[in-house]
Amino acid sequence: MGSATLRCIRKFSGNNNMSEKQGYTVVDGGSIITPKGFTSGGLHCGLKKTDRNDLGAIVCEVPAAAAAVYTTNVFQAAPLKVTRESLANGTLRAVIVNSGNANACTGEQGEADAYEMRAAAANHLGVAENDVAVASTGVIGELLKMDCVRSGVAGLPEKLSGGAGGAEEFCQAILTTDLVKKESCVQVQVDGKTVTIAGAAKGSGMIHPNMATMLGFMTTDAAIDAEDLHSLLRAATNVTFNMITVDGDTSTNDMLVAMASGLAENGKLNRLHPDWDAFAAGFTFVCETLAKAIARDGEGANHLIEVQVNGAVHDEAAAAIAKTVVGSSLVKSAVFGADANWGRIIAAVGRAGVPVSPDRVDISLGSIAVLKQSSPVAFDEELALAYLQGDTVLITVDLHDGDGKATAWGCDLTYDYVRINAAYRT
Amino acid sequence: MGSATLRCIRKFSGNNNMSEKQGYTVVDGGSIITPKGFTSGGLHCGLKKTDRNDLGAIVCEVPAAAAAVYTTNVFQAAPLKVTRESLANGTLRAVIVNSGNANACTGEQGEADAYEMRAAAANHLGVAENDVAVASTGVIGELLKMDCVRSGVAGLPEKLSGGAGGAEEFCQAILTTDLVKKESCVQVQVDGKTVTIAGAAKGSGMIHPNMATMLGFMTTDAAIDAEDLHSLLRAATNVTFNMITVDGDTSTNDMLVAMASGLAENGKLNRLHPDWDAFAAGFTFVCETLAKAIARDGEGANHLIEVQVNGAVHDEAAAAIAKTVVGSSLVKSAVFGADANWGRIIAAVGRAGVPVSPDRVDISLGSIAVLKQSSPVAFDEELALAYLQGDTVLITVDLHDGDGKATAWGCDLTYDYVRINAAYRT
Repeated sequence: MGSATLRCIRKFSGNNNMSEKQGYTVVDGGSIITPKGFTSGGLHCGLKKTDRNDLGAIVCEVPAAAAAVYTTNVFQAAPLKVTRESLANGTLRAVIVNSGNANACTGEQGEADAYEMRAAAANHLGVAENDVAVASTGVIGELLKMDCVRSGVAGLPEKLSGGAGGAEEFCQAILTTDLVKKESCVQVQVDGKTVTIAGAAKGSGMIHPNMATMLGFMTTDAAIDAEDLHSLLRAATNVTFNMITVDGDTSTNDMLVAMASGLAENGKLNRLHPDWDAFAAGFTFVCETLAKAIARDGEGANHLIEVQVNGAVHDEAAAAIAKTVVGSSLVKSAVFGADANWGRIIAAVGRAGVPVSPDRVDISLGSIAVLKQSSPVAFDEELALAYLQGDTVLITVDLHDGDGKATAWGCDLTYDYVRINAAYRT
Repeated sequence: MGSATLRCIRKFSGNNNMSEKQGYTVVDGGSIITPKGFTSGGLHCGLKKTDRNDLGAIVCEVPAAAAAVYTTNVFQAAPLKVTRESLANGTLRAVIVNSGNANACTGEQGEADAYEMRAAAANHLGVAENDVAVASTGVIGELLKMDCVRSGVAGLPEKLSGGAGGAEEFCQAILTTDLVKKESCVQVQVDGKTVTIAGAAKGSGMIHPNMATMLGFMTTDAAIDAEDLHSLLRAATNVTFNMITVDGDTSTNDMLVAMASGLAENGKLNRLHPDWDAFAAGFTFVCETLAKAIARDGEGANHLIEVQVNGAVHDEAAAAIAKTVVGSSLVKSAVFGADANWGRIIAAVGRAGVPVSPDRVDISLGSIAVLKQSSPVAFDEELALAYLQGDTVLITVDLHDGDGKATAWGCDLTYDYVRINAAYRT
């Protein structure tokens, strides 16, 4: 089974063949401040018990067209209410984020604290209050230590940087149980201008996003209206952040915010623009890279699990099946144990709540076929064991019912997931 | 956190005050052969790798009115098809069960094997084939070793007994990763006659029943038509077996079979009978006792978790919330760690997909209030820790939205769950 703490920490490199065909280029080492107009930074203000960063900001030197998607959880944390208000006019100059405390289920005082955090950030950054978004992540139900927040926000401006260090400090500031930072950056040519798209995100428990994700931040220097940015954000979220699960739990604080500075000086992007497809593909690639990194860094995870479903009656059915399989505790435990237990995969397919013809299902683990036409295929157990011990496990399900397809990502269920969550709060 | 293997193995005693009021009496030491007309037995035929029993039968000396409910999983195991056929006429004389192999996703050969198992049982028991139900539980996707089944079935008749040993051997024969047998028995007065109702069941993984459960067997000597038995079985299942979850996975083999011998010589029971309510309450109590025992003995479990939801807009909403909370990996991990992390409970309430007013939720752990009107209540952490270390953890959620209420049961998520499922098949 191997040590659950022995982790292969590496960046997802992306598929460059695919990216060239779709018109975008992956920027190695790129970050949220690579797009023109953005600076970022982070520091430790005392919200986390360790000395890791717990407060950060991304700032745009001009008013950025901005959009966000939020958790569908009925109980939405105070910062989401404040951010919704700031985004009503479709522009932002900054987003301020803390980790270590979610400021969720904290009543009127929590709401007042989120407003004060926004006001302090606006004051110290010299921008209007309604140009600042607020995000929080961490423990639910405890009031923010506002002394820490106040002194931290005051110290933030001098930490802001347009260099790699600024992005690094920000990324560290948004992590909770995450082990690695999650960043992605691509470039696209629009009207002959180079447009950069980047993102950063954090996981790594209570991850079963629904219309939004944990915390994610997208920056771009593209010229694009807030409305078009919003529709692209929603579309990209649906096939990326909404297709991952770590533990089936949807957070009260999920939020994905996008800001577009317009400083690339391209002609305004929208669906009719000839370079829209490349821009959308690059934007979606950044979201997918972050989503997969969150799944891969799920609490206690040893493996990234990718489930590809083909041949479903429609895409929605494929998505339901892919998410059910990748979310099954039994499938996740089997991957942890490198056990080629396809019976659990088909059982999960069968309970997804969508139409499936029970007699013609194919299942493969990587390139190893284990089920054909719903009947077992003899396979080499040693080969399967070796495959399942790899970093990434691909499960392919072919239903032969239609053209619907979808991909979902998750991680294995390990002793470490239980250890981390048995005593998270205390 | 304590050792995950240190388990408090005890019978659920039931609530005798409640039972007296509802008109039934719990029979200590009662079993599936306590109702008149039934014998049972079990033996080891070679399907399990250990020497534990893996084949068993319950036999009725007269044609029993019979009914069953089945899994909603699209992929239904071969024995379910055979049992449906046997039950078409509403009577059974026997049910034959094996553990160690689910005979699921085994194609035409699997179906032929299930038919052969039924024919062999009918032959050796001297009854008609369509008076025999077949049930299997264990690994999915492997063919039954029919040599073992054939010799086992041949040896079963001499193992049948109307004494306690016969029930014990049967209960052992249906277990897989279960640690304890699950039985319950009550008596009710109907028309001045004593009617006995009993049941046995097995868990303990892939438990998220939907219209049926893992394997469960109910016997009674009541006189009741198959149709009335079926409607009672469905109603009782909905508030008991369908309200438990161990891991959110729904098996391909779930089946609950009920047989009524009629030998108590009461007047036929139906909804209009004056003793119907007492009979239904007793029947439901047996189902609930078995369901709770399955949750308590969930794979790796240290604690039974009971979630009571009150004040929902309707019962269905309450049921959805109760099941979401009890199924949350984060809530389950927190209970394992004795961490009073109510933030995870309210996050689960908020993602249940049903209407909830976010500002007036109360949550208690046992008698310790932790949330009032959606705001945190100061509580004694030591007291909460002590409570959460007990055998049973009661989580009460009051929504103040209406009269809807429901109760669900589950268990904590432990290292042992992961260990058991990392290498179940191999």
